[in-house]
Amino acid sequence: MIISQTLEYALRAVVFIANGQERSYTTAQIAKTTKVPQAYLSKVLQSLVRGNIIQSQRGFGGGFILAKNANEIKILDIVAAVDPMERIHTCPLELATHGTNLCSLHKRLDDAIATMQTTFSGTSITQIVSQENAILPMFECPKLEDVS
Amino acid sequence: MIISQTLEYALRAVVFIANGQERSYTTAQIAKTTKVPQAYLSKVLQSLVRGNIIQSQRGFGGGFILAKNANEIKILDIVAAVDPMERIHTCPLELATHGTNLCSLHKRLDDAIATMQTTFSGTSITQIVSQENAILPMFECPKLEDVS
Repeated sequence: MIISQTLEYALRAVVFIANGQERSYTTAQIAKTTKVPQAYLSKVLQSLVRGNIIQSQRGFGGGFILAKNANEIKILDIVAAVDPMERIHTCPLELATHGTNLCSLHKRLDDAIATMQTTFSGTSITQIVSQENAILPMFECPKLEDVS
Repeated sequence: MIISQTLEYALRAVVFIANGQERSYTTAQIAKTTKVPQAYLSKVLQSLVRGNIIQSQRGFGGGFILAKNANEIKILDIVAAVDPMERIHTCPLELATHGTNLCSLHKRLDDAIATMQTTFSGTSITQIVSQENAILPMFECPKLEDVS
């Protein structure tokens, strides 16, 4: 499975928050629209805070907002925060004569990972939420103006 | 994680068996060289048998052999047998107005999955084990002739 459940949920959450512009959202609000179980979502949101993708605002009216501009957040950043995609740098079998010289199997797997990293680093959250004529993620069409 | 532990282990096992040409190998023999815990490997091998990638030969001298020619086995076939990579055909949130019209988020994720499927369907086990001048998977260099 390329897109883990955790990654899918994290992407939903970030896209939902990004779509709300400046407004902050509670875990319950995010859970409702993204259809993610609240306990699971809570852990995902914590990972996103640690990864500096979102930040938590405390107090009355508090909730989660993006930690930076949506165009600075790439899909790969969210992958890195919740389900890291690491390149294969050395022989996974720890064979002494392989070391950093990957065999044909691990070279191909590493190439595949590199391809995915390139794909995911080329797409920002802005590109996902701002596409005109596209079906807006998480909402029934037509676009709902009030998401609370 | 793109390459799950199960997929990594399955690939090691198939490449190891393929490299042995016509000979069959027991779970213990495969486990030793591929460095996969034997109980885990046993489950992986069962999935590979169900996926018609390998087959089991019973009796004295029995063990696992490939179920077809190595050039007919693509990495994607092994993925399908142990850790299927499914395309996103309909809205994962089951939004009625999305249906099969994917939003910008799920369209991009589906595109990424399609890219990986293309990558993995383009590589056969023969290509992995027969490359001249390459470091042979699973074995210290130079190539060991006797792997038992």
